[in-house]
Amino acid sequence: MEGPQAVEAAVVASGVRELYLTEAADLAHPDLAPRVQDGGGRVVRMTEAVARAMSETDNPQGVIAVCGLVTKSWSPDDWSPDDWSPDNGTPARLRSGGSRVLVVLDRISDPGNAGTIIRTADAAGAAAVVFTRGSVDPHNGKCVRATAGSIFHLPIITDVDAKTVIDDARRAGWLCLAADGHGEVVLGTPAAHDVSTGDVLWVFGSEAHGVAPEVAAAVDARVAIPILGAAESLNLATAVAICLFAPILQASRT
Amino acid sequence: MEGPQAVEAAVVASGVRELYLTEAADLAHPDLAPRVQDGGGRVVRMTEAVARAMSETDNPQGVIAVCGLVTKSWSPDDWSPDDWSPDNGTPARLRSGGSRVLVVLDRISDPGNAGTIIRTADAAGAAAVVFTRGSVDPHNGKCVRATAGSIFHLPIITDVDAKTVIDDARRAGWLCLAADGHGEVVLGTPAAHDVSTGDVLWVFGSEAHGVAPEVAAAVDARVAIPILGAAESLNLATAVAICLFAPILQASRT
Repeated sequence: MEGPQAVEAAVVASGVRELYLTEAADLAHPDLAPRVQDGGGRVVRMTEAVARAMSETDNPQGVIAVCGLVTKSWSPDDWSPDDWSPDNGTPARLRSGGSRVLVVLDRISDPGNAGTIIRTADAAGAAAVVFTRGSVDPHNGKCVRATAGSIFHLPIITDVDAKTVIDDARRAGWLCLAADGHGEVVLGTPAAHDVSTGDVLWVFGSEAHGVAPEVAAAVDARVAIPILGAAESLNLATAVAICLFAPILQASRT
Repeated sequence: MEGPQAVEAAVVASGVRELYLTEAADLAHPDLAPRVQDGGGRVVRMTEAVARAMSETDNPQGVIAVCGLVTKSWSPDDWSPDDWSPDNGTPARLRSGGSRVLVVLDRISDPGNAGTIIRTADAAGAAAVVFTRGSVDPHNGKCVRATAGSIFHLPIITDVDAKTVIDDARRAGWLCLAADGHGEVVLGTPAAHDVSTGDVLWVFGSEAHGVAPEVAAAVDARVAIPILGAAESLNLATAVAICLFAPILQASRT
């Protein structure tokens, strides 16, 4: 992980094994090193030249941490929809109305999109983000940076097929929706409101190919975001933001 | 511009001066070359090796176009809020309810964000996107690619200060809002609905510093997106998407 904001989130989650700091960064963030050491992590001072060599960014901020892997598998031993409930979850993660939301990214490939979506799902109070088999690795450096620390804030699940997640979630009483530019339900219309109350699982398809046919067939409804201008579609991460925040903005109004 | 989708938008806008095509790309998109030639543009066949050398991307698609600059200045001769009205604009660009929206990006720096926001503003039917002085150049290759062609769909205005745009828009009767995580009005509440009907100018501040104090002081209200989880903030492009689509989703419901 790179950057003070992301490493701060890792420290809070007790996820830092090794912290590399420049002198300037240590002065700017004097609490980081002692907290990593208190948590059993190792702190190494580095020069600016080393920071430039270790960093994946053009403007390294002098704070680099080595952390453990964060992903879980989709299994009763590790994580399942029943694990997260108002009783054992964090109340702040509940959307208004007490409902839950699960985000499934089916074979998405862009690490920047992936990280931005994790950050957005965190902000929207999602229960977890699932990356299906064939998706980008959430540990990709660009993805981790784009999460701005949110990768430590909610469960990230990998190595499962969309169909399995949809089937398990439906058995647990979740409503399953797929975002689809050609969907028969338009977000914001009364029909969409009817299908997006209660616990909702959202599936988003790949940037290049959209929702796969087997996913479209398995969900309860395909939901389109209304497009007013000449754009053919939206960027994936912005589409996720609109879908996840639609019921939040709605709930706040009433 | 790179890629068949973006170049297609440039061809529709008669913006292509030179088109470079590989043989494979010409076979896959046989209409591009004749349409560029009909529009007075020059077509040059290139090899895959030349495509790799010219492209800024890792996986060039064999379609590269040289286009004219698209930006306009903020002046009565070039573009002003009065230029765009339901009478001389494209009706499809009107949000439900007949209101207009103008997007101002104040000193934003990330070209990927910039391009994604142009694409989102297009999809939301915005009247124009303004980049204030000190912002990233919208002609940046990464920005242009992220617009997915939308850079040709609505006016892009540069080289102006936020204060000038806000003052001119207010004189023309527009309501001016700034997106601000610490804003006193929360998006989705009745107070936000009251301030976001009618013609709205939205100002978004830089990724690193948010809305500048002089902008916060000049607008009618500072508006926050509700955050339910542990994320401190949202990615800029996703925040823009939520702000621009909030009234669209609201209008569709009623």
